[in-house]
Amino acid sequence: MFTPIKNTTVSEKVVEQIKDMLSKGNLNKGDRLPSERQMAETLEVSRSSVREALRELEMMGLIESRQGEGNFIKSNFEDILFEPFSTIFLIKESNAKEILELRNVIEKGTVVLAAERITADELEDIRKILDTAEDLDSEEELAKLDIIFHYKIAQASKNFLLQSILNAVSSLIEASIKDIRKNIMIKEEHKEIIKKQHLDIYESLESHNPKIAERAMSNHLDFVNNEMKKSII
Amino acid sequence: MFTPIKNTTVSEKVVEQIKDMLSKGNLNKGDRLPSERQMAETLEVSRSSVREALRELEMMGLIESRQGEGNFIKSNFEDILFEPFSTIFLIKESNAKEILELRNVIEKGTVVLAAERITADELEDIRKILDTAEDLDSEEELAKLDIIFHYKIAQASKNFLLQSILNAVSSLIEASIKDIRKNIMIKEEHKEIIKKQHLDIYESLESHNPKIAERAMSNHLDFVNNEMKKSII
Repeated sequence: MFTPIKNTTVSEKVVEQIKDMLSKGNLNKGDRLPSERQMAETLEVSRSSVREALRELEMMGLIESRQGEGNFIKSNFEDILFEPFSTIFLIKESNAKEILELRNVIEKGTVVLAAERITADELEDIRKILDTAEDLDSEEELAKLDIIFHYKIAQASKNFLLQSILNAVSSLIEASIKDIRKNIMIKEEHKEIIKKQHLDIYESLESHNPKIAERAMSNHLDFVNNEMKKSII
Repeated sequence: MFTPIKNTTVSEKVVEQIKDMLSKGNLNKGDRLPSERQMAETLEVSRSSVREALRELEMMGLIESRQGEGNFIKSNFEDILFEPFSTIFLIKESNAKEILELRNVIEKGTVVLAAERITADELEDIRKILDTAEDLDSEEELAKLDIIFHYKIAQASKNFLLQSILNAVSSLIEASIKDIRKNIMIKEEHKEIIKKQHLDIYESLESHNPKIAERAMSNHLDFVNNEMKKSII
C-alpha cells in the first residue's frame, strides 16, 4: 500500500522549523503564527502540509487555535501535565494510592528546595494564607486554601517541572478523591491538627532549614494520606 | 461569527463515551476501535463528529492510528510524559538544572519505595547488571547499563507514575546532556566511584532499608549532578 511519504516529511520539516524558532527565541509564548496561507507561501509548501504540521504542534501542546483569531504559541504551560496524567489514570496504569505516593515524593522535594530559596515576599504570602485559614470554618474554603498553601511552596522551589507535576497531581486528587478530603476536614480535631502541621511547615521554611522542612512536610502528608487511604480502601 | 456549537458537543459526547468505556473496562489497552463509518452508524452521529472525537483522543495520547489498520487504544504508555516534558523544555519554562533536581527528587522517592517492595527476582536482575558493568570498559556500554540500573529500581517501586516521570527525565538528560555523561564516565577514578555507589544502592535494597537506600541514592546523585553541573555552567 502506498503511503504519502513526501507529505509527511514536508510537514515534519515545518514542525522542525517552528520548534527551531522556539528554541532560538524567534518565536515565543503567546505569539500568533502567520495564517495557513501565509505559512504555505513563505515556506513554499502545500497548505495541507502546513495543516498537518499545525495539527502535530497542537498534539504536542505547543500551539492552540482560537476560533476566528488564528493559531498561537500557547502562553500558559502550567497545566500541560494534567492530560497525560489523566490518561494514565483512565487507562488504569495507575491508581489513587500511586497518586498519593507521587504527591509525597514531589512535595518533599519542593519543600526542601523552597526552604533554600524562599523569599521574604513568598514567606509573607504563605503566612497570610495561614492567617486567613485561622479564621475560616467552611470546609470548602479551607480545602481551597490548603491547595494554595501547597502550591505556593512549590512555586517557592523555583522549579517549574516540580510545580507542573504537583499541579497535575493536585487536580487528579481533587477530581478523584475530593469527597475524601472533605471527610478528613470535617472532623474538628483534624482541622486543628492540620493547621498545626501547616504552621510547622511554614516555620521550617522561615528558618530556611531543608531537613526540618522535609520532616514537617512528611509528618503532614503521612497524616493526610493515612486518613485518605482509610477512605479509599 | 457562527461557531459549530452542536458539532463540538456531539464529538465531545463521543469522546466521553469512549473514555467511559475505558474506565469501565469495556475497552482496553491495544483494542482496535470500529471504523469511522461503523462508529458513526452505531452512535447515530455524523462521520465528521467521529473524526473530530478521534482527533481529540489522539491528542490526549489515548489512541493511535495505524496506516491501513485503523484506530487503536494505545498499548504502551511508558513514554507518555516525554512529549510534554520536551515541550516545557523547548518553550524554556525549564532548564537542565531543573531536570537534574527533578531526577534527584524522583529517584530518592523510587529507591525508598523499592527498598520496601523489591522482590528477590528484581534484586537478582539488578545484581546481574552490576556484574556485567564490572567487566565492561566501554563508556557507551556503561552509560546504557547505568540507565537500566536506575530504571530497574524505578520498576521495583511498583509506581507507574514515578516510572513514567523518570523515563521522561532520563530521555531528556540523554538528549540534552549526553556528552556530559560521557565526560564524567571517561575519568577512570569516576568509573570506580560510580561502581561503588551503585553497589551501595544495591546492598541497601537487598537489606530492604529505605533510609539507607535514600542516603545511598543521594550520595550517588549528588556526585553525578555535581559533575554534570560543572559541565553545564
